[in-house]
Amino acid sequence: MQTPHAPGIPVAIIGCGLIGASWAALCLAHGHDVTAWDPDAEVRDSFAQRLTGPMEQVRALDPSLTGTGTLRIAGTLEACVEGAELVQENAPESVPLKRGLYARIIAAAPSSALIASSTSSLTWEELGIGMADPERLVTAHPFNPPHLMPLVELFAASVQVRDRARQLYEGLGREVVVLNKPATGHIANRLASALWREAVNIVAEGIADVAEVDRALIHGPGLRWSAIGVHMGYHLGGGAGGIRHYLDHLGPSQERRWATLGTPGLTPEVCDLLTKGVEAATGGRDIPELERERDEKLIASLKARNARDN
Amino acid sequence: MQTPHAPGIPVAIIGCGLIGASWAALCLAHGHDVTAWDPDAEVRDSFAQRLTGPMEQVRALDPSLTGTGTLRIAGTLEACVEGAELVQENAPESVPLKRGLYARIIAAAPSSALIASSTSSLTWEELGIGMADPERLVTAHPFNPPHLMPLVELFAASVQVRDRARQLYEGLGREVVVLNKPATGHIANRLASALWREAVNIVAEGIADVAEVDRALIHGPGLRWSAIGVHMGYHLGGGAGGIRHYLDHLGPSQERRWATLGTPGLTPEVCDLLTKGVEAATGGRDIPELERERDEKLIASLKARNARDN
Repeated sequence: MQTPHAPGIPVAIIGCGLIGASWAALCLAHGHDVTAWDPDAEVRDSFAQRLTGPMEQVRALDPSLTGTGTLRIAGTLEACVEGAELVQENAPESVPLKRGLYARIIAAAPSSALIASSTSSLTWEELGIGMADPERLVTAHPFNPPHLMPLVELFAASVQVRDRARQLYEGLGREVVVLNKPATGHIANRLASALWREAVNIVAEGIADVAEVDRALIHGPGLRWSAIGVHMGYHLGGGAGGIRHYLDHLGPSQERRWATLGTPGLTPEVCDLLTKGVEAATGGRDIPELERERDEKLIASLKARNARDN
Repeated sequence: MQTPHAPGIPVAIIGCGLIGASWAALCLAHGHDVTAWDPDAEVRDSFAQRLTGPMEQVRALDPSLTGTGTLRIAGTLEACVEGAELVQENAPESVPLKRGLYARIIAAAPSSALIASSTSSLTWEELGIGMADPERLVTAHPFNPPHLMPLVELFAASVQVRDRARQLYEGLGREVVVLNKPATGHIANRLASALWREAVNIVAEGIADVAEVDRALIHGPGLRWSAIGVHMGYHLGGGAGGIRHYLDHLGPSQERRWATLGTPGLTPEVCDLLTKGVEAATGGRDIPELERERDEKLIASLKARNARDN
């Protein structure tokens, strides 16, 4: 992994929940100065402490990240964005709430500051329309947990703004993927949603239990897709003739398979099956323990990637 | 990874293409004796040579696999299955063809031999109904490339046969996932198919290019699903309340997202977009080079898993 160390820049973090903490850890470890604000005073007060874990994980992943920027907690949004070059907004998924924040940010931040939303479910159009200066807004959706997962999905209306945002996130060691037009769920959550629908269907139809579906994914497609994309996978599946051969010869059978995929509803019965199946799959491990295991596995995979690419 | 070294058992490989070669390499490296047969004499004659690459990869992954069984090429199916304990069938995906092979296998193999089909697209019911002794048949679908990918998806009608088959494949270092009932595409290819449909839709709708969709998958959901399953992922997505909380609070928004997923057809226009997008994504790398890269990445990921689990 390339982690170019740009000179520190002033970053404002709006919203100090999990995503805000993750962004802050990443920025600080890369030597940027971070000012953070949240409307909830308790959330602000615990923020510095909640950065410790993510900071350790970021450094475990890339020991060269020895620099640390300065962290400040601001008492108001206006004080937070003063002098910022990047404003990363991590507020709840509400259009009116976010639009209200953008109006205040525009009034208080330098006119050159980039305004970036971490939104997972709203689009640039929903957020930007009616905004005073919509070209300054980008959607920059990280994948949870953002300080470990490399992906940032980016949409900007202007090529200049897009390129500037891309450079900023690549400077944070992120893998930036660009959308040509806004879409609900961007790319990754659309793909995840489509896969989960069939994963729910397999459980609802009684084909396999929750734990077995998850194991099939981890040891099969998940592992493959951590190495090679789905389109490229079908290119290799076509043998010497590649994707063209695949589409010509196996396209019709894929279309038939698509027709057999399920469209389950999340009925009370299906929700019970999923809940009981997940409980069985946890084997008594609680959520913090499951998160620790996930993070350890992610860090091991990412270290292997870094070792391979360097 | 646990790689229990069972004492060598006689394995018959029916069909000497890529999948047959992969199974043979895995069995030999684990100390089993392999007899292989293919109706095509040229395919038989090149078989031993085509095992070299997979054998090297299997040993790169697990240097403790120093044992090697004996490889023999049989001139007839009947000679191939004589004395076999496991018969692994890797014939083309045709029900009449496979049924014809099973009849010959049953006539020539020991009555105790397990008959396993590597079929990716046919079900146990389609293959087993009308067979003389259907309880001996299991579907045991490996994920490509099978000597690297851990997953084997298993269905058997009898619990005893299922457990015996599971033990055999686990002895080959495989991660065995059990289906409760047969399904077209088993689990993994159903999930892959569902995800690819949306990946095609994203390209067809102009949301993002092929290369960007693949990168989003590799650095986002693919990486995550190599560490944690999709159901468990939503359990963690529900915070302290887990999957029950997620379903109660975010279930309705998932159902709304499902409704926005695409149902593209593989029209000539869409096929052109996919083909051109894949060509651009290859950056001039040919298929053998792309396969080498994929295998290197898989081996690095699997080594990281082994190091973590041991």
